[in-house]
Amino acid sequence: MDREAKFMNRAIELSRKGMSENQGGPFGCVIVKGDKIIGEGFNQVTATNDPTAHAEIVAIRNACANLSHFQLDGCELYTSCEPCPMCMGAIYWARPEKVYYANTRADAEAIGFDDSMIYQEFELPADQRKIILTCIGRDAAQLVFKEWQAKGNRTLY
Amino acid sequence: MDREAKFMNRAIELSRKGMSENQGGPFGCVIVKGDKIIGEGFNQVTATNDPTAHAEIVAIRNACANLSHFQLDGCELYTSCEPCPMCMGAIYWARPEKVYYANTRADAEAIGFDDSMIYQEFELPADQRKIILTCIGRDAAQLVFKEWQAKGNRTLY
Repeated sequence: MDREAKFMNRAIELSRKGMSENQGGPFGCVIVKGDKIIGEGFNQVTATNDPTAHAEIVAIRNACANLSHFQLDGCELYTSCEPCPMCMGAIYWARPEKVYYANTRADAEAIGFDDSMIYQEFELPADQRKIILTCIGRDAAQLVFKEWQAKGNRTLY
Repeated sequence: MDREAKFMNRAIELSRKGMSENQGGPFGCVIVKGDKIIGEGFNQVTATNDPTAHAEIVAIRNACANLSHFQLDGCELYTSCEPCPMCMGAIYWARPEKVYYANTRADAEAIGFDDSMIYQEFELPADQRKIILTCIGRDAAQLVFKEWQAKGNRTLY
């Protein structure tokens, strides 16, 4: 078995483990640096009442805690299913080098998960979406952004 | 001051607090049910080495923990800045009724945050993005999805 297949098999194994333990949906993820797994996760949405506890988010948080850093430079992420928009956003913030997935977003939709719907929402004009966003209070919030810019010891991420 | 302005002011106050305490970027969020704040958060990316610790994610996790539920039915989310794709995805999974934001994604870009870049990436064909996704191992992963469908006591979310 080649290198990538081995890591993907571990992600799939985690997806089965989380499902069997009734932690959440059938999704698993591992994060690899060099030839070592540095973070793992499976979906824990229903067990922890945390809608953000997707396998990728759990694995990213785990890997970053292990690295004591908020970025995954030079890492690979293996997920048993194509990331949803939330997880894809998290991946851009964490910045691993490569991402491998097994099941597709269409496969996820076929077993009842909303990933495809959310991707479709992103493509709609803001006023046609299921959740409407309204801008209020921008003047007061702008003051805080100006304070951020003027701040000396800020850490960028 | 009207009802919505009061809650947004609290989100902005949290954005200033997190920044002052060097927890992360200048972003705050509150979640409201009825007339009560049931969850709060500010950005803690750099203090906790967690790239997913955006204000909205922290507030959603806090509110869901307080409700002991993985959805925010009938809730409103107030965030001091337009949500990035990760947070927007989390909002779709948590399903609050309304979202209010103050600073825009362009405002965030103007002070050095990548939100706009990530939104642009979502619009590109997969093979032109900064982070390339590769599909491997789908057959093995499909078996787990079939086991999920055949499972008796699964909780949908």
